[in-house]
Amino acid sequence: MEDWHEQKLRVRYEETDTMGVVYYAKFLVWMEVGRVSLFRDVGIGSGEWVKEFGIPVVQAHADYKASARFDDEILIKTKIASIGNSSIRFENEIYKLPEMKLLATGHTVHVLTNKRGEKVPFSHELKSRLTSS
Amino acid sequence: MEDWHEQKLRVRYEETDTMGVVYYAKFLVWMEVGRVSLFRDVGIGSGEWVKEFGIPVVQAHADYKASARFDDEILIKTKIASIGNSSIRFENEIYKLPEMKLLATGHTVHVLTNKRGEKVPFSHELKSRLTSS
Amino acid sequence: MEDWHEQKLRVRYEETDTMGVVYYAKFLVWMEVGRVSLFRDVGIGSGEWVKEFGIPVVQAHADYKASARFDDEILIKTKIASIGNSSIRFENEIYKLPEMKLLATGHTVHVLTNKRGEKVPFSHELKSRLTSS
Amino acid sequence: MEDWHEQKLRVRYEETDTMGVVYYAKFLVWMEVGRVSLFRDVGIGSGEWVKEFGIPVVQAHADYKASARFDDEILIKTKIASIGNSSIRFENEIYKLPEMKLLATGHTVHVLTNKRGEKVPFSHELKSRLTSS
Repeated sequence: MEDWHEQKLRVRYEETDTMGVVYYAKFLVWMEVGRVSLFRDVGIGSGEWVKEFGIPVVQAHADYKASARFDDEILIKTKIASIGNSSIRFENEIYKLPEMKLLATGHTVHVLTNKRGEKVPFSHELKSRLTSS
Repeated sequence: MEDWHEQKLRVRYEETDTMGVVYYAKFLVWMEVGRVSLFRDVGIGSGEWVKEFGIPVVQAHADYKASARFDDEILIKTKIASIGNSSIRFENEIYKLPEMKLLATGHTVHVLTNKRGEKVPFSHELKSRLTSS
Repeated sequence: MEDWHEQKLRVRYEETDTMGVVYYAKFLVWMEVGRVSLFRDVGIGSGEWVKEFGIPVVQAHADYKASARFDDEILIKTKIASIGNSSIRFENEIYKLPEMKLLATGHTVHVLTNKRGEKVPFSHELKSRLTSS
Repeated sequence: MEDWHEQKLRVRYEETDTMGVVYYAKFLVWMEVGRVSLFRDVGIGSGEWVKEFGIPVVQAHADYKASARFDDEILIKTKIASIGNSSIRFENEIYKLPEMKLLATGHTVHVLTNKRGEKVPFSHELKSRLTSS
């Protein structure tokens, strides 16, 4: 559960704003890209999630340290900080490559739901797959 | 069917890019805002569409004449140009207020589908409601 | 400084995701729409901000209570919670109309910078205009 | 000038809508990702473009053939179809991998401008670098 999962991306022109830097809400999109890469790493395909479960966000937080600009190469680090009965907390660190300059830290808290949006507990199997990541 | 439907909005900071102008793909978002306002004007609630039909886009086109900037007030004009058996074509004109400067023209073509994504014909009732707009 | 400023908007189709609800990062876009409406209310035009100052975000936080869906009417409430020497904190509450269902609360913290991105103090005049809002 | 440049990406959850498919305006974002990859391939760094030139879009067009869904792997093919005195036309084909299912075709037309937004001709050197791509 201590492991960071890594995903790289390039800043899109669409993600910048009039100040010439990445718009602040886009960091939450990148944090989602990081979570998806973590799920892929632990063998939980996107299809499985979309069809059987939801993990709606109940809290999102970001602390911004420095700006990113068009075409910058970005590294998104994501780890699972904790898993409760039916909640899960991810932490993120976002860097600019190649100098590994820290741009932002953040976290999100989610609950696990079934397809009807009702909160459900993590199965033992799902929890162990996630915590062995 | 000749009537233009009008919808105003303000340019969001998020919609601008490094050049300080509205990013080109956002005009397609505005064209969608215009279509939704047309549907509302003719009494077709959003709920009805989302639950019973889809109108996936098969073609989108925009000609850009001038730029929009943060906080500009925008007027989106939308009309139905034609309705076929199961297709519909919308035309848009996008202006900057208050001077009514033309920023872009565009059109989209859609097909009517049921909830399973299969193409279906417009009912007489639906077509007449749209054409009487 | 205790006053809430209010801004309404309609959920755009573009803002929804595969779960049929508004994507979580879009709430930060709405929080920005709220801040801009507050600035407008206190007579600080967007042009002034864009040309002379920046207010980059250093922290953003949202707690999600309930979902919003396509075409929902949304009320964004924004107030200034505190102003420091060169920092400012906004708080937001986001509701679904007409039933005033609370969808999310959140806050952002910003620093005031000049056009070169250097932190500058709030002038007495600017602070008093904001705090008299 | 006949060469296609290729760029892959994964569909982000943020890019999907209530129908469970990628929102139509996002294809224009992908077409921009394709253009940037072409520029990179021919050795025109993003920094150069952003600092010295603009290439504002004057026309965008997309024909949609099939849908993309969350986490699909996408291939964006981009080529320069023609270069005029101060205009350039890109063509795009967008596929779903691994089956190379064609999702959309499109094109954009741009003009070359200096930093003040005035139309300027392509230099011989710039044109030859682009056409030798």
